Amino acid sequence: MSVVSGDVILQKLAWRYATKEFDSTRKISDENWKVLETAIISSPSSYGLQPWKFVVITNQTVKDQLPDAAWGQSQPKDCSHYVVIAARKTTDADYVQKLIDAMAAERSVPVESLSGYKQAVLSKTGGMSNGHQEWNSRQCYIALGFLLETAALLGIDACPMEGIVRDKMDLLLGLTDTGYTATVGCALGYRSSSDKYAEAKKVRYSAADLIKRI
Amino acid sequence: MSVVSGDVILQKLAWRYATKEFDSTRKISDENWKVLETAIISSPSSYGLQPWKFVVITNQTVKDQLPDAAWGQSQPKDCSHYVVIAARKTTDADYVQKLIDAMAAERSVPVESLSGYKQAVLSKTGGMSNGHQEWNSRQCYIALGFLLETAALLGIDACPMEGIVRDKMDLLLGLTDTGYTATVGCALGYRSSSDKYAEAKKVRYSAADLIKRI
Repeated sequence: MSVVSGDVILQKLAWRYATKEFDSTRKISDENWKVLETAIISSPSSYGLQPWKFVVITNQTVKDQLPDAAWGQSQPKDCSHYVVIAARKTTDADYVQKLIDAMAAERSVPVESLSGYKQAVLSKTGGMSNGHQEWNSRQCYIALGFLLETAALLGIDACPMEGIVRDKMDLLLGLTDTGYTATVGCALGYRSSSDKYAEAKKVRYSAADLIKRI
Repeated sequence: MSVVSGDVILQKLAWRYATKEFDSTRKISDENWKVLETAIISSPSSYGLQPWKFVVITNQTVKDQLPDAAWGQSQPKDCSHYVVIAARKTTDADYVQKLIDAMAAERSVPVESLSGYKQAVLSKTGGMSNGHQEWNSRQCYIALGFLLETAALLGIDACPMEGIVRDKMDLLLGLTDTGYTATVGCALGYRSSSDKYAEAKKVRYSAADLIKRI
């Protein structure tokens, strides 16, 4: 099967940057949006539990209210699609069972054949000391990585945004009391020609600094 | 600038799976490894702080000791390259200053011109209630996402591994008392032809279940 050229991947990753100003007149096509959605749904997560919801906001009236839940930043209202990745607060036995049932159905195997896997997951989730919400939040950042890299490959600009006010965002998006909570946002669309950060050199420490080889 | 076809991206993401058995005779080429390393170094992080180290293990003697720090899982010894992403435990003022100095040098601007940015970062890092290690760990999962997606695009197999025993791994990799701690692992290489999981259908909840549109 064909692969993607490493040079092209690195060229696109060098092109991406945290977009400060979006061109509010340019929208992501339905075709490209479908790719982005499929990419985040394809993201891996611990045990395959998919402990997330993705809220996609394109309604301009709602987008105009988003900066109030994002420390006044303008990207949520000016971008094409704003995504909030919400983490599941708990991983209870019912949620584990949902996965087991889905695996059995998708792979056409008896639920009973997955009992070992189910016990392994329950043993982990029942024994966690640092809380499911934090664990689940980490998984959300894998999906964020997939979203950002896929956007770059498609030539779509993005700005990951941790600076969201969780309670306000949950209220605005109807997440309050759903068992999920806003964890990280991402604005997607196209950079404005006036965004001076587009030309700023990327600042990354060297491989000699960041990589230890054994 | 050319972009990558959405169909190709999705095809590669559908091809990837958490590899259980690696072919220990197949190694990632230096050329492909360079792409993977550059991709993780290119990963975005909050404020650009890059609160991570990447430990890359190819020495077979060390690889043979890794399963003992990974609940007996065989992937670390059988894969081509095993990566441990280590999170920085703190984000102190000196580390913030390192970023400011690097930005000033890379972009040829006076350090003083970045004082507003520096204060914004210090205000965040000085005021965090949930701890820097957890925050930094989340960033590590963005890099994990970039590593996994880039590997898939290159046709390289991978297995993300949260199941590592932090203290043992830190000791084995010489991370103890460095200010960084093993957070998540990833085995990379090529699937064994006997890995039956390669053919298992991917289990993902539907867009209707995972995506809320506003």
